[in-house]
Amino acid sequence: MTAQFNAEAVLAALRSVLPSQNQLIPLHEPLFNGNEWAYVKECLDTGWVSSVGKFVDKFEEELAVYTGVKRAVAVVNGTAALHVCLLLAGVKPGDEVLIPALTFVATANAVTYCGAIPHFVDSEETTLGVAPCKLADYLNEIGEQRSDGCYNRNTGRRIRAIVPMHTFGHPVDLDPLVEVCGKFNLKLVEDAAESLGSFYKGKHTGNWGCVSALSFNGNKTITTGGGGAILTNDEELGCIAKHITTTAKRPHRWEFNHDMIGYNYRMPNINAALGCAQLEQLPLFLSAKRELADAYRQAFAGIVGVNYFSEPANSQSNYWLNALILDEPFAGQRDDLLKWTNDVGIMTRPVWTVMHKLPMFACCPRMPSILNPV
Amino acid sequence: MTAQFNAEAVLAALRSVLPSQNQLIPLHEPLFNGNEWAYVKECLDTGWVSSVGKFVDKFEEELAVYTGVKRAVAVVNGTAALHVCLLLAGVKPGDEVLIPALTFVATANAVTYCGAIPHFVDSEETTLGVAPCKLADYLNEIGEQRSDGCYNRNTGRRIRAIVPMHTFGHPVDLDPLVEVCGKFNLKLVEDAAESLGSFYKGKHTGNWGCVSALSFNGNKTITTGGGGAILTNDEELGCIAKHITTTAKRPHRWEFNHDMIGYNYRMPNINAALGCAQLEQLPLFLSAKRELADAYRQAFAGIVGVNYFSEPANSQSNYWLNALILDEPFAGQRDDLLKWTNDVGIMTRPVWTVMHKLPMFACCPRMPSILNPV
Repeated sequence: MTAQFNAEAVLAALRSVLPSQNQLIPLHEPLFNGNEWAYVKECLDTGWVSSVGKFVDKFEEELAVYTGVKRAVAVVNGTAALHVCLLLAGVKPGDEVLIPALTFVATANAVTYCGAIPHFVDSEETTLGVAPCKLADYLNEIGEQRSDGCYNRNTGRRIRAIVPMHTFGHPVDLDPLVEVCGKFNLKLVEDAAESLGSFYKGKHTGNWGCVSALSFNGNKTITTGGGGAILTNDEELGCIAKHITTTAKRPHRWEFNHDMIGYNYRMPNINAALGCAQLEQLPLFLSAKRELADAYRQAFAGIVGVNYFSEPANSQSNYWLNALILDEPFAGQRDDLLKWTNDVGIMTRPVWTVMHKLPMFACCPRMPSILNPV
Repeated sequence: MTAQFNAEAVLAALRSVLPSQNQLIPLHEPLFNGNEWAYVKECLDTGWVSSVGKFVDKFEEELAVYTGVKRAVAVVNGTAALHVCLLLAGVKPGDEVLIPALTFVATANAVTYCGAIPHFVDSEETTLGVAPCKLADYLNEIGEQRSDGCYNRNTGRRIRAIVPMHTFGHPVDLDPLVEVCGKFNLKLVEDAAESLGSFYKGKHTGNWGCVSALSFNGNKTITTGGGGAILTNDEELGCIAKHITTTAKRPHRWEFNHDMIGYNYRMPNINAALGCAQLEQLPLFLSAKRELADAYRQAFAGIVGVNYFSEPANSQSNYWLNALILDEPFAGQRDDLLKWTNDVGIMTRPVWTVMHKLPMFACCPRMPSILNPV
């Protein structure tokens, strides 16, 4: 027999932290208490709502300052950011790209947009992200070093890059991962979609990859309605990122000349206006999230079977979403917990279905240590 | 010696129509005189700015009613709409897709996003769009009918679809084009990015293709900041369009299951709010554009060498942008005309650089009647 939760204790813990029992509690709710109205209204009053406008430039500059990168390029969403990051990392059709099996589907989709094949790797319990040591062992086994890079011995395909994703805002252990990338000649692209406001060893996430992707979807720490950004410390890559996301049009007073296959991925000015106002409030949001995390940690401290997930060592997490990890004997009751909480109006969700269990990715290569699809 | 324009006469004609001589005249300027602020403010006040919200549904319903299609799906921009239209039309990697050489680069880019090859065809002077008779002759010559469709005799590749684009809002001659598609077993996808408010034989453009794409970029007849829509009269394709543009997630209270490679192409609610307000004013915008077109037509009537382009027979154009066609002997002076007008603050632009003159498309197949790249 599997162990049983004390359902009442779990609900009581949640209720001790949450504002009211009679109100529907969403997973995340954006707050617009700053200059959102003023900036958005300025767009409407001046007519600058679309592809050009001062808020796009302002948002990009302020994002770069906040995250500490040389260049930020605002785009239409996090998936578009990831797609372009992979292109800038040199991912080519037929390449393999290592990504965690435990991620949102956008990471895997973006790989396929490049004509490349996702190759799923395991995550570790301490970070919920890619496990560098395990990865190194795996690459020692299946990787073949050739003069131009790392190849998968089993498939013959080049393994071009790895995309760690900072799950729920908790940073992956980046230093050893950078080492693995150096050793195996892999490009590092950070999927920082969830980790705006998260730091690893004092530096903002997104500074380790050659390029990194942020998301500002409505459920994220700050939102632009829909939006994302490409971060890089390589100024040349930053220029290409801007060019390729704005249809690769060469500047001219009137001519329409484009010099490469480009994308219409630019963030509209009205969405960037929202972003500027939200970014001003980010420190407030982060401290509120940290307080909430502390309250959850205390509330769940005494309950058997559930463990509140805290930021990994060396990291300061944005605590974007708060997570409980169930002890193994209680794992079978995960869906009961989801049902109890959602039934009483406290929205909860499980972690994503792991990528290799989705039908379109079932045949992609993966580390053997990842559980088989059921 | 080539003929010379009367530059003063051209400028005087423009000035007789335009509001003021001391003001910079943009090519197009959006107007927000309706419910834009009320609807956008409602998004901010309720917190519904992102991927879900009532304005997305409302905008889609009202677009479908206005254009007379069964289903409209709002997306992030016109390029995304085109990309998904091509996927829904069954375009596969290695296929060829016929598109006009005379189009905005997005039409050709969208074809490449599917792994397909653009194949450029000629446009006709009466519509500025694809010439159906010329196309039929061409397909008789290079097309090989096999049991599963039309193949290019020269390349061996399947020709899957044709994408007419309604240049500057003027409808292509659709009836004979539909016939050509039937005869040669080609899917018809309308690039109606520029033609919201344009009708062919009394029916809105976008009703002839199996799927069609609209754009609401800031320079379009109505704008959502950035945005587009997929139109279709096939309800099943409409459902797939919605599914594939929203990460192909299957509805569930909490599970994250996706059943195919999807895209994050949904239009954010805050942009749809703008769209709802703009759509209410579309009849006003269209009658103002028609008045402006009449004024230009009269102003340019007597000037040697320039011809104001009027809507084709059987069509009611939205007159999105007003175009002058130069008589052949004056063609060499096009750039002078662009310089004179832009120098005095009246923004003008040439038609796009034809696709086969762009470096990334120079090697794509094309009708031999299209001029060689210079």
